[in-house]
Amino acid sequence: MNKLELFENIKRKKSFLCVGLDTDIKKIPEHLLKKEDPVFAFNKAIIDATADLCIAYKPNLAFYESMGVKGWIAFEKTVKYIKENYPDQFIIADAKRGDIGNTSAMYARTFFEELNIDSVTVAPYMGEDSVTPFLTYEGKWVILLALTSNKGSHDFQLTEDTDGERLFEKVLRKSQEWANDEQMMYVVGATQGRAFEDIRKIVPNHFLLVPGVGAQGGSLEEVCKYGMNSSCGLIVNSSRGIIYVDKTEKFAEAARKAAQEVQMQMEKELKRVITPL
Amino acid sequence: MNKLELFENIKRKKSFLCVGLDTDIKKIPEHLLKKEDPVFAFNKAIIDATADLCIAYKPNLAFYESMGVKGWIAFEKTVKYIKENYPDQFIIADAKRGDIGNTSAMYARTFFEELNIDSVTVAPYMGEDSVTPFLTYEGKWVILLALTSNKGSHDFQLTEDTDGERLFEKVLRKSQEWANDEQMMYVVGATQGRAFEDIRKIVPNHFLLVPGVGAQGGSLEEVCKYGMNSSCGLIVNSSRGIIYVDKTEKFAEAARKAAQEVQMQMEKELKRVITPL
Repeated sequence: MNKLELFENIKRKKSFLCVGLDTDIKKIPEHLLKKEDPVFAFNKAIIDATADLCIAYKPNLAFYESMGVKGWIAFEKTVKYIKENYPDQFIIADAKRGDIGNTSAMYARTFFEELNIDSVTVAPYMGEDSVTPFLTYEGKWVILLALTSNKGSHDFQLTEDTDGERLFEKVLRKSQEWANDEQMMYVVGATQGRAFEDIRKIVPNHFLLVPGVGAQGGSLEEVCKYGMNSSCGLIVNSSRGIIYVDKTEKFAEAARKAAQEVQMQMEKELKRVITPL
Repeated sequence: MNKLELFENIKRKKSFLCVGLDTDIKKIPEHLLKKEDPVFAFNKAIIDATADLCIAYKPNLAFYESMGVKGWIAFEKTVKYIKENYPDQFIIADAKRGDIGNTSAMYARTFFEELNIDSVTVAPYMGEDSVTPFLTYEGKWVILLALTSNKGSHDFQLTEDTDGERLFEKVLRKSQEWANDEQMMYVVGATQGRAFEDIRKIVPNHFLLVPGVGAQGGSLEEVCKYGMNSSCGLIVNSSRGIIYVDKTEKFAEAARKAAQEVQMQMEKELKRVITPL
């Protein structure tokens, strides 16, 4: 999927919501545990209930890997289900991978060739040759960690170098030598507030993947105020705030309602960039 | 396994070699492809041929994930095989994970609870709360990326801050607030030469996991000269230089010979720290 197609989906759906499929078998409704593949059953219900309200799904690999082989099966089934039934959805493998060149190439093969996923999150610490193997697939995206939503983001990402440039700014600047805004996006946590202004000075045109709205306390309004650009430029993720709002048999309906609330806020915010017909 | 036990194994075997199980189905001997699980068959043969010459095995997750569900099965079988047949081996899941707290906790559960692996490599970019969930398991280790062996290590890891501290030095210093040398090791590439001197000033007592000897061009002699401490303090990994030296039916014998050569060099180097009986 290219940048224009992504923006078209956002305009059509009046939403830039990504639903995070952080599916933990210990947190899903009990009645699903009788199913053959409870995690997939949960995901399928959440996807069917929210697909018209969001433009992306983001399964976080940790939640699937924690179940070993069964988890990988559930992950692959989930990706396949989205691809077959909702081909307009942008799929993000939230994997935060990054290794030496020949190893990153193996990860790229997994996500882009074997699974035909649209994008993968990558950690920048190991530098250029850990990122570029992911950039050899046409129409596929790297989403590089820049300024994350967690408390630990202060430990290293904000460290200022001798030129006064902070590490996350260096990551944004340097990585533009490796790919442009048709192949690269950046992770910026919703909890980072005004930092979006600084970020937009370095990457005015890139899409940003923004986690941290909802359970982690980030404000959608603030993110839009400082982070939105003329092609929206934001994919805002919510995981726990949507998928776990209800633990009864009505969990999917409740997830839909939660997604709808976010979508309605997004529709308002989008008026900044979309001229009404 | 604790630090003392690790050092005891090193003294007994006169080796601090880690064999990297970067098993790529496209690179293993052809006759194995007829087997039910070619990757496991390859690993089993390599392990049986080298277990008395090394003290650790390091499967890199990328190589297993690239095969999806089948890869995970081969990975789990490999770990189980080592645990059951060579319980003195230190197993390193080379995963380079790191995510927000609740997600890192899921990864920790996978590697330490489900698979009972001894250690996992973790990327530091996301800071404290991405690392500490791995530290809640007694006898288990975090191996944090500090100064890696690849070219891209120059992009961010060497960036100097306003106090003249380089990023990898800050990672070494800061992370000591989270765990001591009984729970934490660091990845330092063999290609980094004299940097080992600077590193030993900050972490004199920690074990270092050193990739990059062999195919990547690092020198064992130099690593030992600048990096060895009184309890050895080094686990030196070789992957391609051992497991892929021969592609015929005699691959395991050839791997043994390659491992033996490294072990013999290591025995010499260990004389710096082990008093002969």
